[in-house]
Amino acid sequence: MTTVHSPTRALTEALIRRASVTPKDEGCLELIEERLAPLGFRFERIEANGVSNLWARRGTARPVLCFAGHTDVVPTGPIVEWESHPFDPVERDGYLYGRGTADMKTSLAAFVTAIEAFVAAHPDHPGSIALLLTSDEEGVATHGTKIVVETLAARGEAMDFCVVGEPTSVDTLGDMIKNGRRGSLNALLRVIGVQGHVAYPQLARNPIHLIAPALAELTAIEWDSGDEYFPPTSFQISNIHSGTGATNIVPGSLEMRFNFRFSPASPAEMLKQRVHQVLDAHHLHYEIDWQLSGNPFLTPRGKLVDAMEGAIEAATGIKPELSTTGGTSDGRFIATHCPEVVEFGPVNASIHKVNERIAVSAIEPLSVAYRGIIERLLLA
Amino acid sequence: MTTVHSPTRALTEALIRRASVTPKDEGCLELIEERLAPLGFRFERIEANGVSNLWARRGTARPVLCFAGHTDVVPTGPIVEWESHPFDPVERDGYLYGRGTADMKTSLAAFVTAIEAFVAAHPDHPGSIALLLTSDEEGVATHGTKIVVETLAARGEAMDFCVVGEPTSVDTLGDMIKNGRRGSLNALLRVIGVQGHVAYPQLARNPIHLIAPALAELTAIEWDSGDEYFPPTSFQISNIHSGTGATNIVPGSLEMRFNFRFSPASPAEMLKQRVHQVLDAHHLHYEIDWQLSGNPFLTPRGKLVDAMEGAIEAATGIKPELSTTGGTSDGRFIATHCPEVVEFGPVNASIHKVNERIAVSAIEPLSVAYRGIIERLLLA
Repeated sequence: MTTVHSPTRALTEALIRRASVTPKDEGCLELIEERLAPLGFRFERIEANGVSNLWARRGTARPVLCFAGHTDVVPTGPIVEWESHPFDPVERDGYLYGRGTADMKTSLAAFVTAIEAFVAAHPDHPGSIALLLTSDEEGVATHGTKIVVETLAARGEAMDFCVVGEPTSVDTLGDMIKNGRRGSLNALLRVIGVQGHVAYPQLARNPIHLIAPALAELTAIEWDSGDEYFPPTSFQISNIHSGTGATNIVPGSLEMRFNFRFSPASPAEMLKQRVHQVLDAHHLHYEIDWQLSGNPFLTPRGKLVDAMEGAIEAATGIKPELSTTGGTSDGRFIATHCPEVVEFGPVNASIHKVNERIAVSAIEPLSVAYRGIIERLLLA
Repeated sequence: MTTVHSPTRALTEALIRRASVTPKDEGCLELIEERLAPLGFRFERIEANGVSNLWARRGTARPVLCFAGHTDVVPTGPIVEWESHPFDPVERDGYLYGRGTADMKTSLAAFVTAIEAFVAAHPDHPGSIALLLTSDEEGVATHGTKIVVETLAARGEAMDFCVVGEPTSVDTLGDMIKNGRRGSLNALLRVIGVQGHVAYPQLARNPIHLIAPALAELTAIEWDSGDEYFPPTSFQISNIHSGTGATNIVPGSLEMRFNFRFSPASPAEMLKQRVHQVLDAHHLHYEIDWQLSGNPFLTPRGKLVDAMEGAIEAATGIKPELSTTGGTSDGRFIATHCPEVVEFGPVNASIHKVNERIAVSAIEPLSVAYRGIIERLLLA
């Protein structure tokens, strides 16, 4: 017996059967191109370091509304821990199970079916609809969205609105939109002391003791108090290591890794400066490597946020909360080129875990919500 | 050509040829017994866990003056790094090289020759002369001197004065006596937090952040200011470890090892209590394992210190400094039973290193100094 599923679910399952573990695409982009080609989309593959990224566009006019996402998925972990095979989508108790069901192949399928329905109803719509897809998001992410955005910017091709299909919902589809993300700044700090014997501390300089007051100061600082859209900037030390294991040796150095999740109120340069001030005030001899993983971005209330809220409420009956919490996403790259960027997609509770899943009842509403956004932005 | 060396040097070389790497004795005790037997010493072997310890005594009267030491040596490390074989004593440029020349086979030989000379001159001396020798000092040290002292204490056999032959001199033989040692207290602290993602710090409890203010407080405390004999108590953290290496995970726990070198002004129980007070004041959830490695001991100026100062000055022309610095020694065990304990021996600059050595010119004066102590304490 063959069950005929709704169009969004059918395409979702076809994408899940392609085991596109990052950075592999495994034909997902081709499958999407096959669906969009009859609608009059133009395709451009932008290749970098073996990663093939897709830029697809229908229309030449402004505004340009882009849907962005990724075809790659995180590894499955031990397959025996899954209740069913991660690349063989199966429904159980109202949920569709498989790697990528939530992050984010259902969103890709919903993009396609939303566009199909919209174009069927409005073949001569104003503006342009675009897709920006990559298979390098879950890994290092340096050869994916970033490259496409740089290419568009270099040739002056505008993007007015962008919807990223990341799984942003918390308990039920539609309860949360991300209208920005905090920045992320990493550092590796090495404090240099002088090794010695614990019985002769006057001949050594213990880096653990040297950093202790600076550590107390850094962990007590209130970096900012957040604002309407952002929680306060947070500082977290993820690793601290010093000592050889021997109990009678004063170690010669200490290594510490820390991370800032920061709001626009505390730009990266300001955070670096304050850290250096604290370390210098305690006369520490140190080396520090900073790595800016992403600047914060924000899309305040405006056309895109309003359209998305309206579309979600119409599709799901739920009024979404705006949030900028959580990790980083490709939105950070898009925001450098596109003035309004939001993220919206399925419930994220099962992402990156075994038995990743999506409620079957959330699949078609997602497509309806995406279609509602197109209508609100291009037909208004 | 056979060179005839002084009696102390000849016995030193014979002991060094026995490769008694801890806890092995390799016949060193027998060699010493052979020399002392004709003088009328009574021998007792006190065995524990395969270690054979020697208690030797001449006379039955008080006061009992004991010389204490160990026949074991630390491992040689790679023999190719030595300029001559560590167990084949060789003279070069005025120094005798070999493992144990400084720590402490020359002291053992000097004990024997000092006693031989004294007994020859005073066969009917008052009091008793004793030797307490072990081959378990450089290792775990739990089956050596400690066992002998416990045996003597259990049967009520007194010891009035004890000279430990550890290498205490710094630049030249006779410049330093140890008339006590600081105590040593170790701890392993585990601070328990709650693991999480750095992007959601409100759901985690970061043990590095939790301990930071306590760490600043502990490293800033002045535990005591020392006294006439002891430097201030010192606190040193030898190891701190937290974090899995991942930069986006808030670790769930932190481990820290620290050590106190403490004077009698700050007994171990007081130090423990103050550490617990600081940790508790910061509401830390923690586990701590304390290990008392040795209590402090002190022999203030009195009969033994005076006799040793006088004997050293007569033998070397140098007035020794009294000190309680440095690591631990078997003196900590003897001090629980014997009211006056001091340590005196060769220059310690080369101990536990390759090319361990002693100045040839320091060998006979060491024997003369030990003989001077016997004369001053038993004939006075």
